[in-house]
Amino acid sequence: MPIPANFTLAHTEVGPLQDEQVLVRNLFMSVDPYMRGRMNDGHSYIEPFMLNKPLDGGAVGEVIASRAKEFKPGDGVTSNFGWREYFIASPKDLRQIICEVHPLSVYLSALGMPGMTAWVGFNLMDVKSGEVVFVSGAAGAVGHIAGQLAKLRGCRVIGSTGSAGKVSFLRDECGFDAAFNYKDGPLLEQLTLAAPDGIDVYFDNVGGEALEAALSALRVNGRIIACGGISGYNEEKPRPGPSNLFNITTKRLTMKGFMVRDWLGHQAEFEKIVGGYFRAGSLKSRETIVSGIENAVGAFIGLFQGQNIGKMVVELT
Amino acid sequence: MPIPANFTLAHTEVGPLQDEQVLVRNLFMSVDPYMRGRMNDGHSYIEPFMLNKPLDGGAVGEVIASRAKEFKPGDGVTSNFGWREYFIASPKDLRQIICEVHPLSVYLSALGMPGMTAWVGFNLMDVKSGEVVFVSGAAGAVGHIAGQLAKLRGCRVIGSTGSAGKVSFLRDECGFDAAFNYKDGPLLEQLTLAAPDGIDVYFDNVGGEALEAALSALRVNGRIIACGGISGYNEEKPRPGPSNLFNITTKRLTMKGFMVRDWLGHQAEFEKIVGGYFRAGSLKSRETIVSGIENAVGAFIGLFQGQNIGKMVVELT
Repeated sequence: MPIPANFTLAHTEVGPLQDEQVLVRNLFMSVDPYMRGRMNDGHSYIEPFMLNKPLDGGAVGEVIASRAKEFKPGDGVTSNFGWREYFIASPKDLRQIICEVHPLSVYLSALGMPGMTAWVGFNLMDVKSGEVVFVSGAAGAVGHIAGQLAKLRGCRVIGSTGSAGKVSFLRDECGFDAAFNYKDGPLLEQLTLAAPDGIDVYFDNVGGEALEAALSALRVNGRIIACGGISGYNEEKPRPGPSNLFNITTKRLTMKGFMVRDWLGHQAEFEKIVGGYFRAGSLKSRETIVSGIENAVGAFIGLFQGQNIGKMVVELT
Repeated sequence: MPIPANFTLAHTEVGPLQDEQVLVRNLFMSVDPYMRGRMNDGHSYIEPFMLNKPLDGGAVGEVIASRAKEFKPGDGVTSNFGWREYFIASPKDLRQIICEVHPLSVYLSALGMPGMTAWVGFNLMDVKSGEVVFVSGAAGAVGHIAGQLAKLRGCRVIGSTGSAGKVSFLRDECGFDAAFNYKDGPLLEQLTLAAPDGIDVYFDNVGGEALEAALSALRVNGRIIACGGISGYNEEKPRPGPSNLFNITTKRLTMKGFMVRDWLGHQAEFEKIVGGYFRAGSLKSRETIVSGIENAVGAFIGLFQGQNIGKMVVELT
C-alpha cells in the first residue's frame, strides 16, 4: 500500500511560453487505481513513474495563455498532465472540450477514461437485452458507468461494492436491479441470492474473490470482461488465482482483457454515444471530489480503501 | 487417483435382438481423461457414471447382426457404447464409418473425438500463419493432433510433454518445431528457451503450471484455447489458479473454453477437412493400444501417469 512518504509536493517554475505552446491551469486531476502499477519497477504494459520526476495522469484544465493558433485563453482542455497545477504543452497533447458541461470533472469520469473503459468493455462482448450482468467494484469510477450502460442495453444488473452507502447509491441512483456489500458475507452466497439462476456476463474490476464467485455463477456461454483487478494491486507477492478457473472450459466461457488506450481511435464514437446518454439524463456521472493538490496523495491512497463513490477527482483551486 | 478396486468387470447376457436393433461387437474402446470427471458425484457439464451400472464412452465396432435396414453385418460403426465387448443399439445411436482406414482405432483418435476437439479448438480463434503456438499435453490424444493442425496452418509449434521419448515423438514424428519435457526444469524457463520472443496462442490441455507459464509467455493480443486441465482432474481439493491471471487484462488476452459435443453439427466438415489431411498423409494419428477389456482400467489410470503416446485405446479381441 502506498504511503504519503512515497510522494513529495515540489514547487517548480513554469515557462517561459514558446511559440506553438499553450499554458494551462488545471482545474481537476484524476487519481486512478491503474497508477499503482506505475509505482512498480520493471516491465509492464505502461511505463513506470520515474523517481524524482513529476507523476502524470488525466486532467481537465483551462487555457491561460496561448502562442498556438489552435487554442485561446478560456478554452477547456483535457490532457495527461495531471498531478500539477499548471503546465505548458504543445497543442497535440491537448484535447478541446465543451465547457458547458458541469462540473468539468465529468471529463475525468463518465465522459473521460473511466466512462470510455466501461463502454469499450461492453463493446468487446455481445451483451444482449435480458442478460444478467454482474459488475464488481460497481460503485467505482468504471463500475457505476458499466452498470448503467448494461441497464441501457436492457440487462438485469447486479453490483458488488464495499459499504451500505454505496449499495444505496447503486440501487437508488444508478438503477442497479440488485447490489450488495461484499463485506456482509461470502460473495458467492450474496451473488447467488441476487442472481439465483446465474449470470451471463461478469464485468471484472476487482479480481480475487469476486472473480472466483463469478466463475461459479456464470452460465454456459458466459463472458468475462477482464477490466481491472484492484484487489491485487497492492499485494507484495502475487496471490493465487481462482481455484475454479476450469469452469472456463466446462461452461464454454470467454474471458477477454483490454486496455482502453488501444481504443482511442473510437473516442469520437464514444463521446457521441455516451455523451448523448449523459446529455439526455439517462446516464449519471458521480464524482468524489477532494480539494487541493496537497490532498491528491490522500485521494489516491483512498482509492484502495474504498473512500470514493464514483470517480475520485482532485479539484485544483 | 482412481484405483482398480473402483471398477468391476461384469458378465451379462446381450440380447435378444429386436426389430430395429443392431448387435455390435466392439473392436476398440476409448479411455479418456474427461471420464475422470464422470467419476465425481454432483452437478457437472456431463452426467456422472452411475454406481453398479456399466460405464460408457467412445467405441469402434463391427455389426454382427442387424434387424434394422440401416445396417448389415460387417458394417463398421462408432458409438458411445464403450467399456463393453458387445452391445445392442438402435440405428440412431450408431454412426457408419469407412472400414478401409487402418487401424480402425483412428476413429477414436485423429478422426474421432480427440481430433475433432483439436480442430474445434483452433476454429474458436483466428490462428494465423507465422504465429507461435504452444501446446501442453502435446503428446496426448488431442495435443499431438492440435500441434500438427497448427503446423498445417503455418504456425511455429512448441509442445510440452512428460518424457524424453515423447519429446522425440513430437519433434521427429509430428513435426513440432520445439518440444520439451516439463519434468526437466521450470516450465516457464523451458518455454522461454523454445520461444524467446513469446507465444501468440496457447492450446491448454493441462492447466496448472503450464497455464501459468503460458500466461507469462503470451504476447499482447494472445489467445488461450481452454481445452483441458488434466493436471487437476485427480485433485481432492481444487488447487489455486495461476497467480498471474491479471496478464489477461494487461496483455489483452482472450481465453475461451469449449466442449466438442457442442460442435457435432460440424462433424461432416471436420471429417472432410481433417480426414483429408489424414488420407493425404499430412496428419499422423498415433495410438497406444492396450489389449483386452480386462486391461481397460489399467489403460484408463495410465492416462494420468502419462503412459500413452497419442491416443490411449483398448483393443477388444
